[in-house]
Amino acid sequence: MKNSIGRQVPDYLEGYGAVRPFTGAFQTFPDMLRQAPTVKMRRPADRKIAKSLEDVFRDIPVRDGMTLSFHHHFRNGDGVVNMVLATAARLGIKGLTVALSSVFPVHAPLLEHVQNGVVTGLDTNYMSGPVADAVSRGVFSRPVIMRTHGGRARAIECGQLTIDVAFIAAPAADDYGNINGVAGPAACGSLGYAIPDAEYADFVVAVTDTLCEYPLSPVSIPQTRVDYVVKVDAIGDPKGIVSGSTKVTKDPVGLKIARTAAGVIKAAGLIKEGLSFQTGAGGASLATAHYIGQMMEQAGVTASFAMGGITSYMVDMLNRGLLRKITDVQGFDLEAVRSIGTNPNHIEVSAGTYANPFNSGCIVNKLDTVFLGATEIDTDFNVNVTTSSSGMIMGGSGGHSDAAAGAKLTLIVANLLRGRLPIVKDNVLTATTPGETVDVLVTERGVAIHPSRRDLWEKVTAAGLPVKDIHELKQEAEKIAGTPQAVKTGDRIVAVVEYRDGTVIDVVRQVAE
Amino acid sequence: MKNSIGRQVPDYLEGYGAVRPFTGAFQTFPDMLRQAPTVKMRRPADRKIAKSLEDVFRDIPVRDGMTLSFHHHFRNGDGVVNMVLATAARLGIKGLTVALSSVFPVHAPLLEHVQNGVVTGLDTNYMSGPVADAVSRGVFSRPVIMRTHGGRARAIECGQLTIDVAFIAAPAADDYGNINGVAGPAACGSLGYAIPDAEYADFVVAVTDTLCEYPLSPVSIPQTRVDYVVKVDAIGDPKGIVSGSTKVTKDPVGLKIARTAAGVIKAAGLIKEGLSFQTGAGGASLATAHYIGQMMEQAGVTASFAMGGITSYMVDMLNRGLLRKITDVQGFDLEAVRSIGTNPNHIEVSAGTYANPFNSGCIVNKLDTVFLGATEIDTDFNVNVTTSSSGMIMGGSGGHSDAAAGAKLTLIVANLLRGRLPIVKDNVLTATTPGETVDVLVTERGVAIHPSRRDLWEKVTAAGLPVKDIHELKQEAEKIAGTPQAVKTGDRIVAVVEYRDGTVIDVVRQVAE
Repeated sequence: MKNSIGRQVPDYLEGYGAVRPFTGAFQTFPDMLRQAPTVKMRRPADRKIAKSLEDVFRDIPVRDGMTLSFHHHFRNGDGVVNMVLATAARLGIKGLTVALSSVFPVHAPLLEHVQNGVVTGLDTNYMSGPVADAVSRGVFSRPVIMRTHGGRARAIECGQLTIDVAFIAAPAADDYGNINGVAGPAACGSLGYAIPDAEYADFVVAVTDTLCEYPLSPVSIPQTRVDYVVKVDAIGDPKGIVSGSTKVTKDPVGLKIARTAAGVIKAAGLIKEGLSFQTGAGGASLATAHYIGQMMEQAGVTASFAMGGITSYMVDMLNRGLLRKITDVQGFDLEAVRSIGTNPNHIEVSAGTYANPFNSGCIVNKLDTVFLGATEIDTDFNVNVTTSSSGMIMGGSGGHSDAAAGAKLTLIVANLLRGRLPIVKDNVLTATTPGETVDVLVTERGVAIHPSRRDLWEKVTAAGLPVKDIHELKQEAEKIAGTPQAVKTGDRIVAVVEYRDGTVIDVVRQVAE
Repeated sequence: MKNSIGRQVPDYLEGYGAVRPFTGAFQTFPDMLRQAPTVKMRRPADRKIAKSLEDVFRDIPVRDGMTLSFHHHFRNGDGVVNMVLATAARLGIKGLTVALSSVFPVHAPLLEHVQNGVVTGLDTNYMSGPVADAVSRGVFSRPVIMRTHGGRARAIECGQLTIDVAFIAAPAADDYGNINGVAGPAACGSLGYAIPDAEYADFVVAVTDTLCEYPLSPVSIPQTRVDYVVKVDAIGDPKGIVSGSTKVTKDPVGLKIARTAAGVIKAAGLIKEGLSFQTGAGGASLATAHYIGQMMEQAGVTASFAMGGITSYMVDMLNRGLLRKITDVQGFDLEAVRSIGTNPNHIEVSAGTYANPFNSGCIVNKLDTVFLGATEIDTDFNVNVTTSSSGMIMGGSGGHSDAAAGAKLTLIVANLLRGRLPIVKDNVLTATTPGETVDVLVTERGVAIHPSRRDLWEKVTAAGLPVKDIHELKQEAEKIAGTPQAVKTGDRIVAVVEYRDGTVIDVVRQVAE
């Protein structure tokens, strides 16, 4: 069958189950109760410190076929996923599903566990590196589930991703399981992505290299939800947190795109007292924030808050008074880590508070604007941030679809050509974020506005910005680079791309070898 | 039938249901899943601000027979309970159950709603004033449920107290429902008792007199759980927070008891680096904390934390470095309110984190010692803090039973005579806290130690403190005051006293008129 944006999705998929097709960004309503874990009890004399991960595995006990969850706050510096899976392998456990909020190159050892049958399922919001390559080539027999950051929180809270054991890499913990991310040698800042896991998993294990005196504070995850505390030598390398670009671009084309994007935001009337925005960590997104900051200073206004993965650039805006608050689900560099530990206006928020579409209201709903990247965008404004031009998985939504759905004004900032290929296509290879939630495409050769936003078209045109039809941008790109050949993929579905509400917006097929 | 401490309780009670008898402080185990409210959804354009309580009542809609919940952080200064119930009365709603964590004299208007059938049930942890008197006289046809502070959190989390609508008096709120207790003219400090309600009620309404810019911080209750925000002129009188004694006693007898209690704690070896304690707000309890502070200074040690309802006395110890942390479920005076808003080592905790026996571990489990009051204590060390010598309800457990169960050393500090009556009895009129969780009774005429604590008996005797058998203390009191006549009560059960685990430890019968 085809879903509402015309993507071919099966009715049923072996290893995934019945497919609920995507029907629109706000067309699927919750019809369930919240996940209800078994109620527990601890007597005063009970202790939570376990000697080793092996002891925890035996005590729970971890069995074949369970789902183990992990957060990705250490990004490419994580040490806990590999450590826990090595323990599972040593104990001969098979058929585990790994629910890891994002997968990085450091997680390459996962593949050995897949080959040995220790791990047979993967549930994640983003992946890059060897695991992503192997998924694209079909290493898992069950399709991998790719979610959004808000969608993962939703799936956990709504009982669609049930976690048997959450292993939480804890930069600091006390002996009774209070956890935070701001102390210890591997401080990673916000622990936002681990909070739903801790709230709803059947068992919660804090894995820490820094045991602090009870009661630890501040508390990101409270003792009431943590069953075991395991001290290990090191939980990760905080240097690995900084991965990918977290600096304002110096590329003149990128800067031009960013200036134009800021101009669109101004034309939309959003450079006003109390504005709010989210930016990704990419160079062009950060450059857009830079120009917005300049415009705010010129206009003498300040922002009520900025959301997102947080970089030093946002922290600097907070310290200069351009931002009144930062809401932080994830630190992208060590400045962000330091700031959240010391500045009360830099606030930790959970993945659910950030972006879960199925609660009484998440933060993305309050965003004025967000500027995001794209690998491809089609003439219906559907965006691909999941697969590359060769069809390999190289990302995933993360918070892309969430912020796009929530913000009043969503901009995609991107070079018209990516490598030598036009980014505007008739059809994206993989639809990650639906076009109805995207308002503007900003490129170095012009600005395309979604046809539903006639109001915006008028304002941006009146501001003298180079507005073009998206088909025109596509033709310009093809004039330079030629019409790209359609990517050939295999037939087998290797990943299901779930929209934030749990419907299937697309599938990823195995790359053709 | 008789429960394990010999109290006569019915098998079944009309308006309450089947009775699970108390069987020991740690003998009842959870066998349920957590409460699972219906999952919700908010679109970005949806607003939460409601014009009036009437509008909220109509929108939900509030119907006959529902359970409405409230917190007691304003104590005798609360304005929200009366306001909400007046709205219910105006709209002609009947048969409501009021789940209010504690009832104070300010809640007297509740009685009119009982007489008019608007309110037919009451669920609370403590009551004093006209409502308590009327309950004792049988104004409710259904028995009132009296819980502990931890027991209320347990009942909510375990689905035994299901809340249709939680009305949360919010000293500060933003338009999307983030709430805290530290800003605004009616700042009350910790909102600990409201947190379980917000997490598990089907609908949550923030009632505030102070709307702040989004996003409010710090956040005690997050936007993800709040459905409506209503602005009213005033939510309460913060002066009413200070009710009852919150100063160190100046009575020489009280001081003698406190000195002796501190001596017992020292003899038990607990004046050591990193000790932890809870104190009530009563004069003798605070005086005990005062002497402990002196001993700590002499010994050159500091406490890891103090828990409890917090007074200026605790804040002063924190500021002087005698305490490293305060964990605060409720502020008892305005110094506590100021401190929690400014000192990061003064930590807000929820009622569940404080004392819920059915989670992965609450704070009372980590207490070294607690010193508590009593109206009566029997020769099995069972304590009554629920009814007076005339049989009228004048209190309730609050955190009494919780802290007693959790702490390694639980002391009851009390004058041997209360008014003209001995406090040691063969049987207390109402058992609130079971004797097995009480270690020591400290009076001005000697110290009695629970027979199960032979170890402690030896240490306290060796320290030269006046240890006596509890029967001996009873006889001494009776020699002075005579043997008191047993209180005569009526037959009808007006209240059920639930232990923290949900079993029935006792019942309260109507006072004889």
